[in-house]
Amino acid sequence: MEASTITDSRPEPIDLSHLYSKVTSNRTTSNVKDFYKYFTIPGIGNLAGGLPNNNYFPFDTLEAAAALPQRFIPTPNKPVDPPSELLSKTTLSNGISSSRVVVPKTSDNQNVLRKIDLKTALQYGTAQGYPPLYSFLRQFTIENLHPNVPYAGGPEIILTCGATDGFCKAIDALSNTWNEDRDWIGHREGLLVEEFCYMNAIQAAKPRGLNIVPVAIDDEGMVAHGRGGLYDVLDNWDKSRGKRPHMIYTVTIGQNPTSGTLSVQRRKDIYAVCVKFDVVIIEDDPYWYLQYPSANESSLAHRGRPAANAHSDHPDLNPPESQKSSGYPFLDSLVPSYLSVDYQGRVVRLDTFSKTVAPGCRLGWITTQPNLCERLLRITETSTQQPSGFVQSMIAELIMGPHDPKHGRGGGKSDGGWQVEGWVRWLQGLRGNYERRMQTMCSILEGGKELVKSGRRKSIDIEWSVVEKVTLFDFIWPLGGMFVWVHVNFPSHPLWNKTTPAKLAQGLWVHLTSKKYLVLVAPGSIFAPTDEIRDKRSWAYFRICFAAVDEPEVEEMSRRFVNGVKDFWGKKSLDDIEEMGTRGLEASEGLADLIGGC
Amino acid sequence: MEASTITDSRPEPIDLSHLYSKVTSNRTTSNVKDFYKYFTIPGIGNLAGGLPNNNYFPFDTLEAAAALPQRFIPTPNKPVDPPSELLSKTTLSNGISSSRVVVPKTSDNQNVLRKIDLKTALQYGTAQGYPPLYSFLRQFTIENLHPNVPYAGGPEIILTCGATDGFCKAIDALSNTWNEDRDWIGHREGLLVEEFCYMNAIQAAKPRGLNIVPVAIDDEGMVAHGRGGLYDVLDNWDKSRGKRPHMIYTVTIGQNPTSGTLSVQRRKDIYAVCVKFDVVIIEDDPYWYLQYPSANESSLAHRGRPAANAHSDHPDLNPPESQKSSGYPFLDSLVPSYLSVDYQGRVVRLDTFSKTVAPGCRLGWITTQPNLCERLLRITETSTQQPSGFVQSMIAELIMGPHDPKHGRGGGKSDGGWQVEGWVRWLQGLRGNYERRMQTMCSILEGGKELVKSGRRKSIDIEWSVVEKVTLFDFIWPLGGMFVWVHVNFPSHPLWNKTTPAKLAQGLWVHLTSKKYLVLVAPGSIFAPTDEIRDKRSWAYFRICFAAVDEPEVEEMSRRFVNGVKDFWGKKSLDDIEEMGTRGLEASEGLADLIGGC
Repeated sequence: MEASTITDSRPEPIDLSHLYSKVTSNRTTSNVKDFYKYFTIPGIGNLAGGLPNNNYFPFDTLEAAAALPQRFIPTPNKPVDPPSELLSKTTLSNGISSSRVVVPKTSDNQNVLRKIDLKTALQYGTAQGYPPLYSFLRQFTIENLHPNVPYAGGPEIILTCGATDGFCKAIDALSNTWNEDRDWIGHREGLLVEEFCYMNAIQAAKPRGLNIVPVAIDDEGMVAHGRGGLYDVLDNWDKSRGKRPHMIYTVTIGQNPTSGTLSVQRRKDIYAVCVKFDVVIIEDDPYWYLQYPSANESSLAHRGRPAANAHSDHPDLNPPESQKSSGYPFLDSLVPSYLSVDYQGRVVRLDTFSKTVAPGCRLGWITTQPNLCERLLRITETSTQQPSGFVQSMIAELIMGPHDPKHGRGGGKSDGGWQVEGWVRWLQGLRGNYERRMQTMCSILEGGKELVKSGRRKSIDIEWSVVEKVTLFDFIWPLGGMFVWVHVNFPSHPLWNKTTPAKLAQGLWVHLTSKKYLVLVAPGSIFAPTDEIRDKRSWAYFRICFAAVDEPEVEEMSRRFVNGVKDFWGKKSLDDIEEMGTRGLEASEGLADLIGGC
Repeated sequence: MEASTITDSRPEPIDLSHLYSKVTSNRTTSNVKDFYKYFTIPGIGNLAGGLPNNNYFPFDTLEAAAALPQRFIPTPNKPVDPPSELLSKTTLSNGISSSRVVVPKTSDNQNVLRKIDLKTALQYGTAQGYPPLYSFLRQFTIENLHPNVPYAGGPEIILTCGATDGFCKAIDALSNTWNEDRDWIGHREGLLVEEFCYMNAIQAAKPRGLNIVPVAIDDEGMVAHGRGGLYDVLDNWDKSRGKRPHMIYTVTIGQNPTSGTLSVQRRKDIYAVCVKFDVVIIEDDPYWYLQYPSANESSLAHRGRPAANAHSDHPDLNPPESQKSSGYPFLDSLVPSYLSVDYQGRVVRLDTFSKTVAPGCRLGWITTQPNLCERLLRITETSTQQPSGFVQSMIAELIMGPHDPKHGRGGGKSDGGWQVEGWVRWLQGLRGNYERRMQTMCSILEGGKELVKSGRRKSIDIEWSVVEKVTLFDFIWPLGGMFVWVHVNFPSHPLWNKTTPAKLAQGLWVHLTSKKYLVLVAPGSIFAPTDEIRDKRSWAYFRICFAAVDEPEVEEMSRRFVNGVKDFWGKKSLDDIEEMGTRGLEASEGLADLIGGC
């Protein structure tokens, strides 16, 4: 840091402390450095700390059988790329496809950033993260994920217990709670969200008394200008509702639930509005590496137009000369984070291992400007303290590998760790798997979105044959993520106008769970951030996930969905639908809670 | 629960909702049950949830080499108990002292409360905890740890990321933040604490704007009646400081830092005051199973009086007939939790695996009345979600063991899990280790607490020999925990009155870190919850931990401490001490941050 401030010509990040919550401002700074020299006196006997003795931990080793990074087959970064080079690497020449990872009880490695053992991983640790894993992720984040952060010194990171924990800490740092029973409305703060969004974030923010303020979206994601867009919402803010919101929560790649993927130009537009109105962007990006260039090609082939323009304007495989390369064509091919346009340091990015390793890790990290990161560290010290050493040491050993083969082994071939190269290769393999699933599902949806009725019509004496096409639903081919956001064309249903749209939609939802179809989809209502959006528009949508079911089932389930919708258009009885609609209404609230976390 | 409300003659827990924070009251209840039936339709294809596919997790197994529960030698429950029976079990007849624990990728076990595998443990899960571990801990808590909770239905539990996380959630549930810049003083809430206490809790509570209100302690712990005791503080509460505090944070066994252990009678006295003033007790109990009956015997032998009376009035090995046994003499011998006197349901107990397994687990649980537990569940769903599946599955497999040997192995002999019996035996072994350390340290401190100077004195013409005894420091033999709380008799120092007490104390602290002694102890100042206590009284104390250093060092370090203090009494130069005192002052703030978490 010291060195970089001397040679760094980038602007300093701005001071965000006026946006910190009172609780966060109240937290004292740490004076560890003043004292640390005493802990490191050679031979000092530490009777000061209240640590249990690490020889009393019942675990002598921690081990795992783990995948090699080559386990899954990637897809190309552009549909025109030949994947053959990567394909040829999916198995090792010796046929080995997995390895053993071992975290030993003690490691002799003297470098605290390289030492991975249970003696340290299972002891009390630093809240920013287990030193080896923290240092790996910090370097990976700064050099490979976001090599072009435009402020001086670049960002800092802190590990979290997953992105939900990260979000909870971010709003704790950046918002005051508001109590309607006793606080002035002028103190009420707000959170800007996409008009359909990930509900767990809302459920975290709303009880704090925050205004939840939806912003219009299009096929990419949040809209900067125009009616209902970010500028419109902020410029015309009605102060009788509270303070003008100063935070955005957004998922910009494979948005949950709409699968929107935000272009670089849109990021710049949104960011400019945030600069004008002093807004912080909390970017939750669990699906970042799940970007699907083939969606554009497929959309083009089927519909004569690309899915969206997110992939048309970003650096792609050839970043502009002014931009640093990540060092990996795969990473360079991905639409970059808001951090890449964050010249003021007002972006808080949430990363997670939930989709790259497993949700049960409860492990992730926050990337943001160092001053805010320090505040998040203070919050962490008095809450979660540090992610579990079990997962931190296993991930560290898997990726970083052993530095002395006598003491533990990593997750790569020949007992070496995956390293950055292996980690990127693993991400490519996962992208491959999910991209193929997306293609499978969307191809079937594409083929089944219309109902073709052929028949004969008669008028007075003349009879003729007709082919009638009814659009049952539509969707955008997703450029990223795990979902297809299906817009159902309920007005074309024979019973439209005979009941309420919501009941018709809930009827379809229950109908799909019946014996003939047996598919459970997520109703749009559970992604509506406000009552108004839920009541007026959400019933028209379903979110369908191609990620969770086992691979062979993706095709089968997609067909069942298509058939279920088609057959529903044959329903003539209102009683039947209304009964189902009522059941669906009862169920959907529960569904929101049950799948709210993912 | 339904069954117990019919036959349960115990009183219902009271409604605490008037004490919930506004944010916690705002949280909606979960409607999961209404919906759950759809998830369990046989053959249903779940396209609703946003889960990644579990075949894509890179971990195929999770394994460990783990201790058998017999690894360490217990001490007796009463000094008169013969430990021979347990001693004979410390090694198995076949000489095996460790076992392999294996969490497989998938288990065929159909019972979700018994199924332990990576497919479930590493997937999104329920916030109350991984079902097998949650159900084990719930049963252990209700039947073995606290078989005598006096309210109907008994308590509920929820897993946490350790006790610090548990405390953070408890105060989030039970207190509103207060902003001095804009809120009325009458809304300021407060937290009652012991007058020397665990600072991490203060650091979590204070930024919320809570009044931190110390209550007098004696050798046992918090005082109920008399000057500065709980009743006094609450009855004479000055409303100009804010609302009368409605929460206590307390460590009742081996209190940190004073090592006080609260008797059952004192618990009843404090509880009655809490009932009168409507106060909730947050009981943090990391050292519960580290109770040392031998401290009383040793104190009696050396000083003619027991350490304190905590062990004189509780059920001991023979609980009153009205009390249920835990089923284990060891557990019955321990002073029970506040939960045992909690007839209204106003106790929130924090447990942790930090001292029974390892701090790096970041795993614990909260035990409290079901309604409050439900609120904590809501908080958990939008913050940490669930503890890491890596640690939850490993601990579950270690204790509960495999239910089909084909799929994984537990941590006990013959591939069975430890089970409750093994877990209790493990706790006994740990108690044994720490109790022996306590004895080692305290015996040396006992022998070194006085300076015996023999010399000759002369007055006019007569010369005679004198033996002068100066008490350098004193302490209570700890009945539990990991610490000795040493009260240094600074007024007997030759330079007392030549400098400030704080400088003298800080001088001793630095002196102890010098080459000849090389021991680092925790100065009392870092356990002072208010500036007043820190400035006026804390300088007289050091907290010395016998738990952290390796076993052979306990004796050596204790000697170095004793010698260091003794030699300090030989200091004649004020310059020397003042210089050290200044250095000590700078360091002690950093120390508070560095060891604040333990």
